[in-house]
Amino acid sequence: MKLASLKGPGRDGTLLIVNSGLTRAVKADGIAPTMQHLLENWDALYLRMIDAAESLECGGERHAFDFQAALAKGEVAAPLPRAFQWLDGSAYLSHVERVRRARNDTVPESFYKDPLMYQGGADAMMGPRDPIRALSEDWGIDLEGEVAAITADVAMGASPAQASAAVRLLTLVNDVSYRRLIPAELAKGFGFVNGKGANALAPVAVTPDELGSSWDGGKIHLRLVCHVRGQWFGNPNAGDDAQFSLFDLIAHAAKTRELKAGTLVGTGTISNQDRATGFACLMEARLVEQVELGEAKTPFLSFGDSVKIEMFDHHGETIFGAIEQRVEKY
Amino acid sequence: MKLASLKGPGRDGTLLIVNSGLTRAVKADGIAPTMQHLLENWDALYLRMIDAAESLECGGERHAFDFQAALAKGEVAAPLPRAFQWLDGSAYLSHVERVRRARNDTVPESFYKDPLMYQGGADAMMGPRDPIRALSEDWGIDLEGEVAAITADVAMGASPAQASAAVRLLTLVNDVSYRRLIPAELAKGFGFVNGKGANALAPVAVTPDELGSSWDGGKIHLRLVCHVRGQWFGNPNAGDDAQFSLFDLIAHAAKTRELKAGTLVGTGTISNQDRATGFACLMEARLVEQVELGEAKTPFLSFGDSVKIEMFDHHGETIFGAIEQRVEKY
Repeated sequence: MKLASLKGPGRDGTLLIVNSGLTRAVKADGIAPTMQHLLENWDALYLRMIDAAESLECGGERHAFDFQAALAKGEVAAPLPRAFQWLDGSAYLSHVERVRRARNDTVPESFYKDPLMYQGGADAMMGPRDPIRALSEDWGIDLEGEVAAITADVAMGASPAQASAAVRLLTLVNDVSYRRLIPAELAKGFGFVNGKGANALAPVAVTPDELGSSWDGGKIHLRLVCHVRGQWFGNPNAGDDAQFSLFDLIAHAAKTRELKAGTLVGTGTISNQDRATGFACLMEARLVEQVELGEAKTPFLSFGDSVKIEMFDHHGETIFGAIEQRVEKY
Repeated sequence: MKLASLKGPGRDGTLLIVNSGLTRAVKADGIAPTMQHLLENWDALYLRMIDAAESLECGGERHAFDFQAALAKGEVAAPLPRAFQWLDGSAYLSHVERVRRARNDTVPESFYKDPLMYQGGADAMMGPRDPIRALSEDWGIDLEGEVAAITADVAMGASPAQASAAVRLLTLVNDVSYRRLIPAELAKGFGFVNGKGANALAPVAVTPDELGSSWDGGKIHLRLVCHVRGQWFGNPNAGDDAQFSLFDLIAHAAKTRELKAGTLVGTGTISNQDRATGFACLMEARLVEQVELGEAKTPFLSFGDSVKIEMFDHHGETIFGAIEQRVEKY
């Protein structure tokens, strides 16, 4: 099942069911008004949702409309337009290793067993076509292409196995980062507040069964294709080089707290050891350039620049639709 | 106006108006079903809320009930039972100075100009009488008594003056901390995830006018009275020694992001330079003991231990009601 949200009328949007080809959608508001409502009442509403999704897939649902047209008109919100919790891990240690190598540092041994994770803003997720709005280009505006799980309620102390049962939906994230603000902020020791902007989600979030065997062990074994300023920038495989699965990350987040339905847990920037796969954030390209060429050449994002983040199945079909954003002055 | 929430039927609870003496309350669901709804529609609903509050104060509102009885029965939720964003500052630098002095470190000059702030969990705030539930006493369970503002929508880049207009409500917070988990987590550099538990809020949140002249310059100039295990533990004045006002903290949080209505911004543990005022967290007492006595004597909280956090006006009347919690095994 593929789910999306239309913007309005309230801040939680209106829940949509979308067909697998992402061409048609229908409001699910007769079943659940919002994605958050569905997530809180999943077991009670799931079968009715599945029935409606099957009817839509078969060409039924006479109130269905053109999803691509709504997307193009900017009417589609993030599938979960706002979340009570966004916890972002850092599962791909080649990302961390490159950051540290550039400053002649090594990765602490503990990072291979104990996930890095921070909590970020999620009170207003960007829709998949919404602009990235910043006050200044000097912030060092960067994308971070990631995979995220949207969870059910998770008990405190849940194991990775228990966490696996709590993954309701998967989607893509652009975790916008302000690179030039981060060093001073991290030096204070309390994590990111100013260094991270709002996040965008892909047009749809999907139940794990939509991924077939590509969803295995809490990882999506497919490539995340990133374009920056209209040019190919990377297609790292989200299933490779992940030190931690989404199950591990959810369990880590739940060590000392319950996670409530609708919690969004991210993998961190997808990154492969293999340089040929490119990158899912500008900073990593810049760090590699710094080490190899003596200086960073790839610029951060300027106003007007575009990013595109997408994932395709083995038939070349888009799974989540593309995050396509342009940077704008706020 | 004083506002609270009753637990249920949904996760956002039911909005209540409470009289100034905290003896009687009435459901406001004819005006706004939940606190979050009110915060998102404040200007449109404010006058009706004020009318109902005045009617309650004058003994009207025939559906009013005994607020203290509901509180005693554990039926009262946090005024905002869950928030899309909880950003906690560290405005009282004597707290930071004591932490650093105990490890023979100094406070960086920048801390006096650039607030420390982290983002924490708020997907399930504890009610004022809910137990603090932890899996292990070994976590080093601690209270942190704080003041927090609940905001309206705040624009990115808002100045402290603009932030001042966005303070809708004020309340007290117990920002539960797991001290023995924090050093290793902060060493990773991404802030707190496992080191902080759910937060409790006071029984009511109040509009700033309820505080009269005690609310001045973005600070509440009153003492926060803390009891631990039934004994007086401290009464630092929230108006003294605050390097940053709530206006400064809101503006800091909004530097690179919009804050949406219902954002909760905290002052950090209230702490005075004057030792005679005691403490609003156990760690600070322990650090002072360590420096002065050579070892920390005050134990962290064990299962069964109680904490009480309250603030009184100049007539000795409770403003927000008391946070009264006991520690329990999860």
